[in-house]
Amino acid sequence: MRHEDTVAVRGEVAPGYEPLRAEFAGVAGEGAQLSVRVAGRQVADLWAGDGVTGDSLTGVFSSTKGAAFLVLALLAQEGALDPDRRVAAYWPQFAAEGKGEVTVRDLAGHRAGAIGTADGFTPAEVADDAALAARLAPHRPYWRPGAAFGYHTLTVGALVGEVVRRATGSTLQQVYEERIRRPHGVDLWLGLPAAEEPRVLPVLPPRPAAQDPAAVPEAPDSIGGIAGNLHHPEPTVLSALPDDRAVRAGGQSSVAGIGSARGLAGLYAAAVTGSGGAPPLLTPATAAECARPYSTGLDVVLGLPRTYGLGFMTGRPFLGADAFGHDGAGGSMAFADPSCGLAFGFVRRRFPVPGGAGPATERLAALARACARRAG
Amino acid sequence: MRHEDTVAVRGEVAPGYEPLRAEFAGVAGEGAQLSVRVAGRQVADLWAGDGVTGDSLTGVFSSTKGAAFLVLALLAQEGALDPDRRVAAYWPQFAAEGKGEVTVRDLAGHRAGAIGTADGFTPAEVADDAALAARLAPHRPYWRPGAAFGYHTLTVGALVGEVVRRATGSTLQQVYEERIRRPHGVDLWLGLPAAEEPRVLPVLPPRPAAQDPAAVPEAPDSIGGIAGNLHHPEPTVLSALPDDRAVRAGGQSSVAGIGSARGLAGLYAAAVTGSGGAPPLLTPATAAECARPYSTGLDVVLGLPRTYGLGFMTGRPFLGADAFGHDGAGGSMAFADPSCGLAFGFVRRRFPVPGGAGPATERLAALARACARRAG
Amino acid sequence: MRHEDTVAVRGEVAPGYEPLRAEFAGVAGEGAQLSVRVAGRQVADLWAGDGVTGDSLTGVFSSTKGAAFLVLALLAQEGALDPDRRVAAYWPQFAAEGKGEVTVRDLAGHRAGAIGTADGFTPAEVADDAALAARLAPHRPYWRPGAAFGYHTLTVGALVGEVVRRATGSTLQQVYEERIRRPHGVDLWLGLPAAEEPRVLPVLPPRPAAQDPAAVPEAPDSIGGIAGNLHHPEPTVLSALPDDRAVRAGGQSSVAGIGSARGLAGLYAAAVTGSGGAPPLLTPATAAECARPYSTGLDVVLGLPRTYGLGFMTGRPFLGADAFGHDGAGGSMAFADPSCGLAFGFVRRRFPVPGGAGPATERLAALARACARRAG
Repeated sequence: MRHEDTVAVRGEVAPGYEPLRAEFAGVAGEGAQLSVRVAGRQVADLWAGDGVTGDSLTGVFSSTKGAAFLVLALLAQEGALDPDRRVAAYWPQFAAEGKGEVTVRDLAGHRAGAIGTADGFTPAEVADDAALAARLAPHRPYWRPGAAFGYHTLTVGALVGEVVRRATGSTLQQVYEERIRRPHGVDLWLGLPAAEEPRVLPVLPPRPAAQDPAAVPEAPDSIGGIAGNLHHPEPTVLSALPDDRAVRAGGQSSVAGIGSARGLAGLYAAAVTGSGGAPPLLTPATAAECARPYSTGLDVVLGLPRTYGLGFMTGRPFLGADAFGHDGAGGSMAFADPSCGLAFGFVRRRFPVPGGAGPATERLAALARACARRAG
Repeated sequence: MRHEDTVAVRGEVAPGYEPLRAEFAGVAGEGAQLSVRVAGRQVADLWAGDGVTGDSLTGVFSSTKGAAFLVLALLAQEGALDPDRRVAAYWPQFAAEGKGEVTVRDLAGHRAGAIGTADGFTPAEVADDAALAARLAPHRPYWRPGAAFGYHTLTVGALVGEVVRRATGSTLQQVYEERIRRPHGVDLWLGLPAAEEPRVLPVLPPRPAAQDPAAVPEAPDSIGGIAGNLHHPEPTVLSALPDDRAVRAGGQSSVAGIGSARGLAGLYAAAVTGSGGAPPLLTPATAAECARPYSTGLDVVLGLPRTYGLGFMTGRPFLGADAFGHDGAGGSMAFADPSCGLAFGFVRRRFPVPGGAGPATERLAALARACARRAG
Repeated sequence: MRHEDTVAVRGEVAPGYEPLRAEFAGVAGEGAQLSVRVAGRQVADLWAGDGVTGDSLTGVFSSTKGAAFLVLALLAQEGALDPDRRVAAYWPQFAAEGKGEVTVRDLAGHRAGAIGTADGFTPAEVADDAALAARLAPHRPYWRPGAAFGYHTLTVGALVGEVVRRATGSTLQQVYEERIRRPHGVDLWLGLPAAEEPRVLPVLPPRPAAQDPAAVPEAPDSIGGIAGNLHHPEPTVLSALPDDRAVRAGGQSSVAGIGSARGLAGLYAAAVTGSGGAPPLLTPATAAECARPYSTGLDVVLGLPRTYGLGFMTGRPFLGADAFGHDGAGGSMAFADPSCGLAFGFVRRRFPVPGGAGPATERLAALARACARRAG
């Protein structure tokens, strides 16, 4: 029995990319999409699972951050803002409580310590970048700025977005829509119009995991808990966020993006290779800057080693040194690997435990690269 | 059979804190004490083991450091010293061998590299903060200042103490006694008076552990060994230090504190909630500063990930982000968690292998928090 | 049956060092050499394996870097160059692409990010420090300078060497030959003369290891892959480098040294104790500076915790805090431990999987130290 027989895989792969079909079947589980572009051209467009089509939309969670960081990179490239300038130069209120020396690059690189607030965020605030930014500006940082970095799970997009708004007069979402999504036909939305709603598939919630009785429980108001807003009276249930139409419509730029695998691949193709005849949004130098490690070592929020560039996840051993992208807790993965002109997008329906894209999806990505390098 | 039947647990818990009794029984082993205060009020006061009472005193090892850092925080709050000033501004001799730029915050945050000396310390020196400070000032640091941090096992109290002495004219022990221990009735002593000696229980020494023949033995004069003074002709046997009356009387401020669980909880209650009607010693801002991560990543002495704030251990996932405290090699644990007004103290008699408070004690602390949050 | 009966061990040990014979037999495998000197005096000189003699030469891989860093330390001690000066002050081209603030100490401490180039190096370039330096100077760094460090597998010697050449007018290899190898009779060569060729034994290549099918394959152009030049059309096969006479003759100073265990021990004896009546090359202060940790934490190339001093590997728990040295992927290990006057050299013929000196060799080193401390 061939591997892909276990899950009905639909869609197409270009010659040279046939191995992706079987590998995708092995990770598609209860539903997934894969989109791969090389030099802008679609080389794999696959989907599987009940009710899933190539056009289906779902919550991509932190893969959303890739859209936010691409806006930042584009504006930095154009000189509309300077990543090495202090945040407070754009946003004076942010200087409060010892955050005055934090640069825009620090902000994107998860160095600011503005992961949350003592009281937490209401559900409405979680869905609203402007509200998040307003709450975070006067708040003390959760580590001494300059001394550490840690994943700003729910807030990094709002923080970068407030700089964008003050530097350009437009919200990050507006810049994304006008400069990236619409002109490049990217099926990843920061703020989903009602007209697109019929394509949305609900996220399948995580299955309860067996608890290890010897494990020490994490405090909801620990640094990690605060970053996830677990300490608020209405704690954030990350996997349920995209089920809320208000969240989908608001399109906060850290975790609330709604899209397809095609959209994720399209985002990174627009960034580094262009697609449909358009030139790429980023120069090679800017793309390299996105990927260049800036914050690396022990992530004080996650308690794990991590490497971030201009916000993007980078330094991953299964990708080229110039690759940059982002994964999502729901299992999505998206990245550009400019060395082989690759743009990769993957989403899955069942929210995994633990969250995030795991080794199986990394092997799928590695295989896509290997095919692209052989073909190219 | 209920869990607590295995060990006879004495003492009291307030309504809502009953689960602590069984959990304590599970970790009390050959003798332990637990004291928990919430908003200054005692909510658990338990003990177990032959000869142990609620009044028994024992060596708390590195939980001692919490007293030293509290003195530092208090004096910083009052402006008597500035943690961001260079140590050498108070203590010119410390500038030797490239340590001139080290700040007081760096010193408390285990960044100075003044973990020991090439020749090691005599037993008399180990017991004497002034002697330790005098030996360390002219000595080269064990890493390039600014490039790393590592646990100053035996010396951090002496170093901070010398700054205290030069800034205030009083020793750290005097400030502790006069400003903290006596007025707040804290049963944790830096220098135990003879009159208190009858309450002291000897530490039960660690049981010999099976050696892994494949393990590479640690050199006594490695960075870790030097920090433990294992390379001196009379190497420090940490577990035996409190057996020496001179050590108990000297009260060096890194590892020689003598106290009870009540004392440890009382220390942190005095710091953040006040007790017995007295206001807390620290303002909320100072308390937050104690907890805010400053040194985080790979501890070059321990070879393990660690996070330190204004000296205190912090960033622990089972506690609130604003919690700060310290554990001891003998298994003690003490901290304040201001978010729920919690002060926690735990001591045990048998020195564990490996040393330190382990997961079982962390679960006990997590349970105390959970009770406090439900009750509050 | 005694342990050493399994492998015929030849050579001699001084009284007090007899235990090294059996321990060496246990790690000698298909051929190895061990040389230990204490206070300059040879106390162990052992070899084993078909065709191996005490005079045999083989590739020492990254143990080569020890020779390069010793040249740097020596010149810094003499004031011929300043490790805290910017590289660009000596080598203006190096300032390109944001590397202008990198100091010589940063360069040696694997902080520059100049681990390779996008196109990789030809085999001829890999063997030629001048070619490597010329390629690296204009190239962008693989992380933001100041933000990380990572092992410069193939390039650190070339980079340090270019500074040496510009500061002194001599190549690193010339300085090494004239100031260290020849006057001190060190049997470790950066550029092996034809007359020494008959003593060379080929490296036994690594045995194919079973692949874990669940492992995510490393990309040849990942940061780690680029550092190993695995992405060039003719990728570097590290274990095969010493098989090439051109490599042996060129003596590039990161991985192409050819020597014996006697040579490795002799290098470090020359550095810290002197040998044959000559005074040591380094003052105690310089030796301490070689060992003092400068780059510590997560190595972004290796993805592992590492500690480097003035280039040298340091901070290893089984050695004294002042020990410094280097291991090689082929299993060699070499270091000085000034606290006991020890110089240690070990080489083996079979390239291990994974590469590098492992726990068995570390135990051998720990035993040599223990003998030296008992004897001294």
